[in-house]
Amino acid sequence: MVLGPLQELIAAARGEIEVDLLLAGGYVANVLSGEVYRTDVAIHKGRIAGFDCSSAALVLELDGKIIAPGFIDGHVHIESAMVTVPEYARAVVPRGTTTVVADPHEIANVWGEAGIKYMLQSSRDIPLNVFVMLPSCVPATNLESAGAALGVDALAGLLPEERVLGLAEVMNYPGVIFRDAEVMKKLALAGRRPVDGHAPGLTGRDLSAYISAGIRSDHECTTIEEALEKLRSGMHIMLREGSAAKNLLDLLPLVTAQNARRFLFVSDDRHPADILQEGHIDFMVKTAIEQGLDPIIALQIASLNAAQCFGLRDLGAIAPGYRADIAVLDELEHPHVVRVIKDGKVVAEDDEFIAPLKSPVAARHKTMQIGPISFEILAEKGPARVIGIVPHQIITRSLQLLPKIQDGKVVSDVDRDILKMAVVERHKATGNVGLGLVQGFGLASGALASSVAHDSHNIVAVGVSDEDMLAAVLAVKEMGGGLVAVAEGKVVASLPLPVAGLLSEGYMRDVAEGIAECIDAAHTMGCKLEDPFMTLSFLCLPVIPELKLTDKGLVDVREFRVVGMFLGEG
Amino acid sequence: MVLGPLQELIAAARGEIEVDLLLAGGYVANVLSGEVYRTDVAIHKGRIAGFDCSSAALVLELDGKIIAPGFIDGHVHIESAMVTVPEYARAVVPRGTTTVVADPHEIANVWGEAGIKYMLQSSRDIPLNVFVMLPSCVPATNLESAGAALGVDALAGLLPEERVLGLAEVMNYPGVIFRDAEVMKKLALAGRRPVDGHAPGLTGRDLSAYISAGIRSDHECTTIEEALEKLRSGMHIMLREGSAAKNLLDLLPLVTAQNARRFLFVSDDRHPADILQEGHIDFMVKTAIEQGLDPIIALQIASLNAAQCFGLRDLGAIAPGYRADIAVLDELEHPHVVRVIKDGKVVAEDDEFIAPLKSPVAARHKTMQIGPISFEILAEKGPARVIGIVPHQIITRSLQLLPKIQDGKVVSDVDRDILKMAVVERHKATGNVGLGLVQGFGLASGALASSVAHDSHNIVAVGVSDEDMLAAVLAVKEMGGGLVAVAEGKVVASLPLPVAGLLSEGYMRDVAEGIAECIDAAHTMGCKLEDPFMTLSFLCLPVIPELKLTDKGLVDVREFRVVGMFLGEG
Repeated sequence: MVLGPLQELIAAARGEIEVDLLLAGGYVANVLSGEVYRTDVAIHKGRIAGFDCSSAALVLELDGKIIAPGFIDGHVHIESAMVTVPEYARAVVPRGTTTVVADPHEIANVWGEAGIKYMLQSSRDIPLNVFVMLPSCVPATNLESAGAALGVDALAGLLPEERVLGLAEVMNYPGVIFRDAEVMKKLALAGRRPVDGHAPGLTGRDLSAYISAGIRSDHECTTIEEALEKLRSGMHIMLREGSAAKNLLDLLPLVTAQNARRFLFVSDDRHPADILQEGHIDFMVKTAIEQGLDPIIALQIASLNAAQCFGLRDLGAIAPGYRADIAVLDELEHPHVVRVIKDGKVVAEDDEFIAPLKSPVAARHKTMQIGPISFEILAEKGPARVIGIVPHQIITRSLQLLPKIQDGKVVSDVDRDILKMAVVERHKATGNVGLGLVQGFGLASGALASSVAHDSHNIVAVGVSDEDMLAAVLAVKEMGGGLVAVAEGKVVASLPLPVAGLLSEGYMRDVAEGIAECIDAAHTMGCKLEDPFMTLSFLCLPVIPELKLTDKGLVDVREFRVVGMFLGEG
Repeated sequence: MVLGPLQELIAAARGEIEVDLLLAGGYVANVLSGEVYRTDVAIHKGRIAGFDCSSAALVLELDGKIIAPGFIDGHVHIESAMVTVPEYARAVVPRGTTTVVADPHEIANVWGEAGIKYMLQSSRDIPLNVFVMLPSCVPATNLESAGAALGVDALAGLLPEERVLGLAEVMNYPGVIFRDAEVMKKLALAGRRPVDGHAPGLTGRDLSAYISAGIRSDHECTTIEEALEKLRSGMHIMLREGSAAKNLLDLLPLVTAQNARRFLFVSDDRHPADILQEGHIDFMVKTAIEQGLDPIIALQIASLNAAQCFGLRDLGAIAPGYRADIAVLDELEHPHVVRVIKDGKVVAEDDEFIAPLKSPVAARHKTMQIGPISFEILAEKGPARVIGIVPHQIITRSLQLLPKIQDGKVVSDVDRDILKMAVVERHKATGNVGLGLVQGFGLASGALASSVAHDSHNIVAVGVSDEDMLAAVLAVKEMGGGLVAVAEGKVVASLPLPVAGLLSEGYMRDVAEGIAECIDAAHTMGCKLEDPFMTLSFLCLPVIPELKLTDKGLVDVREFRVVGMFLGEG
């Protein structure tokens, strides 16, 4: 008699048939009962069958190791890892991550619906559960030109897709609290599905208004006070440890046994080098425990809490019927993931991914459409607005300085470190070029350019001459997207990112190396910033104060409008 | 401009418009942040708007009282309270209960789909949220005649009904672990919806098998060991404090801050007198706190935990966007509910329900269809099986005694307290009468009868003579159902339960009085049992050992089959 999957699981649990796998000799970190205790775990057809068996096709001896539920990243932009989803899985799965809740916001800004479908398609049948929250704010603002717009109809078409859970971070908080018609429609569309928030600094009545709309999480808290108010007001607090934004240590003291269930670990934006060197959710678990958090609570935050937040009923715990997604830890005080089991199969051992991995879906749409461009800035009288970089932060200062002028035109001024910067629209060949000045890069020669430029991902460039900047932009276009460093008109380092101008099709370690080479080249050219390409990418983000540059021009973020370079015309 | 409900709530939260109600001067028991602290609560159009306002139509001064989320009963058979749903609300709402998850198993055994629809209809628009889990086992067994059968098709038709959440307690655990086709279909139908368990004593591989089928709660734990195993294996543990089954004190020591989220309070079966005298979920909260449980954890168990277990996203906490269902407590150490707010309106004060309450839906279907009946038992040789009552328990003993015989017929033997008992089929006038003997009632005269008889709710009677038993059965029929005590052929006490033979249409206090009068009458007739009608109702339940009586005859529960009275033919 052929059994259906449920019937077979029940038979396996009862010991009527041989199970696929028995994990023997380990201790289960049971996030449901809040205990760690000695027991075997029986697995059949990718699910937990129970805690013993009559016979097993394979017995894995764990020698006292800890059997923990696979980790869940509650909010991630996979694009920040600059690799395809299968390659992302190769990097994070050995770290114990078996599920991510992804917001494909970046690729949606380039490709719209097609980008989201690409992420869904390329994440199918890989040993990582990739759930998707639909980007709620594409384009992010009307102060820039994105490659696509995701309206209510597009979202409605995507919502029924398998693995789509709800609506991703609603960055447009004014749209919520002032009840913008389009935003209201998107919230109504989400209905009772999860809706993630993004509300840095929002407080008091405005915060209540935002949350009353059904928005139930936030990953932007930077202080205990902010997180406490959001926790009290009904938000799941996402403890973020990204590459640019790191909030874990600041927020951990807020966690108590009585409120811990409302916290999740999330990476948001985490770059290749950080994933490869520090790790992923495993790094947060380890850090939290080392900071004094009860290990079982740290593991709950890393698993069950996210599963409950997103209604993933068969993930986040080790119990009969749950998917057999497991991180085996060497110990609990300074835990290191030594083996990972996904859907009942060992997929990673000793930090190495060992399972077969499908090739990413081909995705070579042309996304580098550039119109005729010029970087010429006609000089005017008086001081000009200059973007002032604040090291290690994504905010900038709006400076007022007298620019260097030659032949009636504004030029880069290496001596005072005031360089020309350009954002070239690259989605629809409109010929839009935003031009500005920036202080803080420290380049003495050459130019840098990148197609990773939040949120619209046009091509951003900075350099000491128009010629080098143009060469850099054209080199990015030639690669189909990527990072580049140009000296004396020649490419000296580059990293192609041909998928949407955001992702490589290569290995994460090669991407990390490529980035390092580009950064080294920039440093050789005099740049003092730790990661000038990350800085460059955030200089285009017009929702973070004070002064930013998009393809439409300089944006005064406090006034939320495009302004001229010279104050005279401001 | 006319605002939609969400727009209006947002505007209210922001203080743009006057809110309906401000709770001022209280302390919020915040089950999300795990704290109790001073704050106001603003309410608008039935929902929490926030924690302050610019103006309020009504300000309620709380003088330091505690603002707790309204309590949720995670598993209840409302029928056990023997009143209609609106009247049930009148009794439990002043106790702080604002939501119940009901399993209309009893009325479904009488009326099938119509009974469930009646419960849904009569619970609409009352100040109590009544969610329904669909009875999974109607009829409970094939050893009795119920009034209806609920097959997969009927359940499929009911599942889309508003307020239906999932599948109620799957009592047929052999059907699960041995993979009965009908049971598998019901589980498949439930899909990812909640499925409640009922698995007393199930352990080891069989428990794993049962849970692996997606059954995620249990309210039948009686020991710490049993509850711990079920907790570890993935079940939400329902701490039950019913009228017959009381498990709260035994299980409380298992609760820790790390696992508390997996516990709920439930009443299961709670009779009128217990609700009116002890209370409902409030009694469990108070008892748990007095036993030393952290008050905020007790309140989480009473609210948020049940909401999460059943996916009720806007219930169980006090935060913007949540429904304004609130229990105001005088203090936390020995909490008493002094005021209840339902959907933003004060509905109870000082233990009294003060809101308008709709009349119950008329439900006078004829449910008393009796065929020609006889209680004659022809004598045979040798000992007979006799049901032996075990005081204060619902199990019975299977005794073997020589019955009293007159004129070749078995008769009640008052001297040895061996009385005749009958179960008369009352749904379809089949004429089925199950006959047996019972020891332990102690009646010296008269007869008792009741149409409340688990699970099929036929008419059960016990008495010293066939004439009194017949008079009692006919009196129950005449009332359209209920309880009755008969002496010398005349009714001396009675309680009509005309709705399905299970529910009164009167007040709960009158029902409690009516029950007390019937019990008093029984005591006057010599009965020694504390509640002979409750005992009587469980004598028919053929899933609880050892010997029971249904309309099909005596049931040996260990062998799960109908047996003859005399051992000779056994």
